[in-house]
Amino acid sequence: MPRKIEVCLSPALIDLYAIENSIVVVIDILRATSSMVYGIDNGAKAIIPVAQVEDCLTYSGKGYLLAAERNGEVVEGYDFGNSPFSYTAEKVAGKTVVLTTTNGTKALHLARKASKVVIGSFLNLTALCNWLNTQENNVLLLCAGWKDQFNLEDTIFAGAVLHNIRTQFTDFDDAGVAAEDLSLLAKDNLRAYIGKSAHSHRMLALNIEEDINFCLQVDICTAIPVLEGENLVAMTAAD
Amino acid sequence: MPRKIEVCLSPALIDLYAIENSIVVVIDILRATSSMVYGIDNGAKAIIPVAQVEDCLTYSGKGYLLAAERNGEVVEGYDFGNSPFSYTAEKVAGKTVVLTTTNGTKALHLARKASKVVIGSFLNLTALCNWLNTQENNVLLLCAGWKDQFNLEDTIFAGAVLHNIRTQFTDFDDAGVAAEDLSLLAKDNLRAYIGKSAHSHRMLALNIEEDINFCLQVDICTAIPVLEGENLVAMTAAD
Repeated sequence: MPRKIEVCLSPALIDLYAIENSIVVVIDILRATSSMVYGIDNGAKAIIPVAQVEDCLTYSGKGYLLAAERNGEVVEGYDFGNSPFSYTAEKVAGKTVVLTTTNGTKALHLARKASKVVIGSFLNLTALCNWLNTQENNVLLLCAGWKDQFNLEDTIFAGAVLHNIRTQFTDFDDAGVAAEDLSLLAKDNLRAYIGKSAHSHRMLALNIEEDINFCLQVDICTAIPVLEGENLVAMTAAD
Repeated sequence: MPRKIEVCLSPALIDLYAIENSIVVVIDILRATSSMVYGIDNGAKAIIPVAQVEDCLTYSGKGYLLAAERNGEVVEGYDFGNSPFSYTAEKVAGKTVVLTTTNGTKALHLARKASKVVIGSFLNLTALCNWLNTQENNVLLLCAGWKDQFNLEDTIFAGAVLHNIRTQFTDFDDAGVAAEDLSLLAKDNLRAYIGKSAHSHRMLALNIEEDINFCLQVDICTAIPVLEGENLVAMTAAD
């Protein structure tokens, strides 16, 4: 059966894709989806992505960990933001995290009407690809970008996924072709490659170099977070 | 003075850019902006881009050439569409063409609030770059795409422009980095490169192979169409 894989380069373009019967992989490498993968891999019971900072507040005082990031920084008064170092087993095992971020949780909300929504990052690249290979639906790789703008790191990850599983697909879009070729250019030195743009200089200004290096590690996790109702939980064999 | 060059990968993302003080280069390689460049280079007095097919009709019977393309084909009842072969000197010299296309004229209308709007294609690549080098404003390279989706040929052209003039600029966005690298991958065989996607298969189905090869010729024109009021006209030394 013909199977299509496409890359959506910005959440602002999501309406161009018919996702009702597709698997959508949400990608926000720096740092939301990397932290989600790491947190679920470290035994977080669930992560609840919410769109607005105010939405987090409704979960206050009920035993949840509250995490809020805007413009790359932890919102004042919150337990933590989206640094992966806040999602260690010590901090999140057995707990539920309520999380809002500038780009990643927005992309997640836009993807909700898909057949299935899963979370991708370099941390779980192979596990994700192996699972996608066992599926039959079309796939949309949704880059969260930065405030609706294209970004290199999400696109390169999308290209790496496509490159890994391309033999399962017959139809590709132009964005997929571009993403794959960029991922091949970048693969030998991811950190240097994503350092080529002004966007990365902004990242450096946030003093999150350790976070960036952490998020570019490949295959240190096997969990695949999947959206069930309002919650991201670890995918099980039944999924 | 710091000078910025950015690439907008889809007209749907134009609102993310502050273009009021920028030069916007509109790019729709297959085929609207290639035909505009070729027509103006061949002595067309002006080309009036209009958004809707119905808008063309208001110019009917007044001595204009009417051109309308939708989904890659000439709209029934029109003199011609957006094939460059309709924009030869024999056909357009001294005449004004009213043109609407699926993507290119839409992008043009979205760019209107820019400081200056010019038209780019491989046909006038060097002339365009030479002119951009003499300017001081920021530059936005606006890819018309295909129905708001990213496409390879517009992106590669944007990357070629950026690569040619990058020494004049200090600030680059992620999309520019990606476009430049894709243009370098594609430059030795443009036709083969843009043949990698499903989109190009759609183009082939339209039986416009000759048009595609024509539009990928580099530097056969020196004209730079510039938007003055409602009209695209040849740039003069005063611009």
